[in-house]
Amino acid sequence: MTTPPSPPTTPTVLVLDAEPLPRLGRLTGRARIEHADASTLAERLPHADVLLVWDFTSHAVREAWPGDGPRPRWVHTASAGVDHLMCPELAGSDTVVTNARGVFDRPIAEYVAALVLAMAKDLPTTLRLQGERTWRHRESLRVAGTRACVVGSGPIGRAIAQTLKALGITVALVGRTARPGVHGPGELDRLLARADWVVAAAPLTDDTRGMFDARRFGMMQPSARFVNVGRGRLVVEDDLAEALTRRWIAGAALDVLVHEPLAPDSPLWTVPDLIVSPHMSGDTVGWRDELGAQFVELFDSWAAGGPLANVVDKKRGYVPGH
Amino acid sequence: MTTPPSPPTTPTVLVLDAEPLPRLGRLTGRARIEHADASTLAERLPHADVLLVWDFTSHAVREAWPGDGPRPRWVHTASAGVDHLMCPELAGSDTVVTNARGVFDRPIAEYVAALVLAMAKDLPTTLRLQGERTWRHRESLRVAGTRACVVGSGPIGRAIAQTLKALGITVALVGRTARPGVHGPGELDRLLARADWVVAAAPLTDDTRGMFDARRFGMMQPSARFVNVGRGRLVVEDDLAEALTRRWIAGAALDVLVHEPLAPDSPLWTVPDLIVSPHMSGDTVGWRDELGAQFVELFDSWAAGGPLANVVDKKRGYVPGH
Repeated sequence: MTTPPSPPTTPTVLVLDAEPLPRLGRLTGRARIEHADASTLAERLPHADVLLVWDFTSHAVREAWPGDGPRPRWVHTASAGVDHLMCPELAGSDTVVTNARGVFDRPIAEYVAALVLAMAKDLPTTLRLQGERTWRHRESLRVAGTRACVVGSGPIGRAIAQTLKALGITVALVGRTARPGVHGPGELDRLLARADWVVAAAPLTDDTRGMFDARRFGMMQPSARFVNVGRGRLVVEDDLAEALTRRWIAGAALDVLVHEPLAPDSPLWTVPDLIVSPHMSGDTVGWRDELGAQFVELFDSWAAGGPLANVVDKKRGYVPGH
Repeated sequence: MTTPPSPPTTPTVLVLDAEPLPRLGRLTGRARIEHADASTLAERLPHADVLLVWDFTSHAVREAWPGDGPRPRWVHTASAGVDHLMCPELAGSDTVVTNARGVFDRPIAEYVAALVLAMAKDLPTTLRLQGERTWRHRESLRVAGTRACVVGSGPIGRAIAQTLKALGITVALVGRTARPGVHGPGELDRLLARADWVVAAAPLTDDTRGMFDARRFGMMQPSARFVNVGRGRLVVEDDLAEALTRRWIAGAALDVLVHEPLAPDSPLWTVPDLIVSPHMSGDTVGWRDELGAQFVELFDSWAAGGPLANVVDKKRGYVPGH
């Protein structure tokens, strides 16, 4: 089922809050907007027609989701991934889940290109030497003509592939199922072994959890560099730290971590040749307004009795499609 | 005159040395290879048929160039710019000067893209915060849809324009003369005033020396960022430092400086929002071999009585062309 039942005349939209709040002025008179935080969510969920998971860093939904009985018929999350809210009760219910598919594609693709180019041109060393007032000429790498393997063939992975190709990089895209332009998981290891750049952009599912582990880092080229913009748990972080320390691979960048925010005493901050950034790859100026506008657009379609876009396959954990 | 007179049977090629030496094994038996450094150049120049300026950081040629009398009929420099060797006596002579046009185009274009993306995604702050073990989410900029003004319409400027366009940036190219796809200098100020990115990639000539000064930084947008990959003296460095300190513009990156290497006590190392790199934008792994191979190829053509490519217009200071 991809469309929730038609809404009541003035549905109750419960917002799991985060600052800054979404701009939902356009729903005035058409929806009753209520707010919750982690402590009040369980109490308010049964009375809501729609849940807007605005705080997409929160795990409160899967803790508060009612087993049976009244519950929202539609849950929208202002994120691409749904791993933070999915639970067996929600997956098994007839509640429709939608996500923010589309908002983050191009910004994340640009962010990956920034990391790839920064590593190729050795920019972290340049900045460090600048801090030491040291002029030291080095040779750098051309990215044109190199090879990337992008894991994750959804809109984000495809946008990444498109942007890297525009820089002259040959890109192999790996998805859950082989199809034209996308390699199946059976080809992953072969492609990893010849990639100069490995980019993780897959959703977090039972199939992808921990897929980048010692075995996979061990099969990459010593000159390879790894980038994760998907979810922290795609990576076995200890294995990556060891692969970098032992120089199995030449570098890595993590924009997503198993534990966010990364604790000040985490050893990951100082792993050699590792760039750590605070889960910001998709968040360009105006992104929150785009996310709010996207929800209003989905609401308009739903209120008009139309089908909902961006409906997540709750068993798989992402929006299926090409 | 674009072709030197046909060479003697076994011409003397004098190499102004720098480490590592060029690989000229392919000239064995066809040329007599001699070597000079700054102290011996004046003495050896009159006996050479060809001068290969392998040390392209040296100013020794313009100091050692013989006024009249015997001198090389062909000078090749392993660089794109010729400002370091040109002097009135050389410019006025019938000696042909060629340059390394073509070798650096794509690497420099990638380097500019790396700087633009790094500034858009605030990568220097990310690396600084990582050093402080601090997780601080920030919003960044999308580059797609922004506007760049690239000053310099030779092969390097055109490669930069092409690469930035591939990232979705709208690019205006400014050259010495207006022609299809290139704006003339009269439009520069108008284009600077609306650019998000200003890239200097022009040769150093009397027309371009000091062209980026307080007046031009003052007319840029406060959000604009400036990149110099041309020659240091295109920029009035004190004016740029002041523009950044007073926040007239948002950031800058200099890969070329008025004095190279930049002295440890230069105030430029610590100007806010300025990235300083050691004149490395074009120097990707293998670049020296490419430069050597390019000279051998030009030599082959010359020895066969053919025309020389990459002949510099000595009055203008660059290879004219489209």
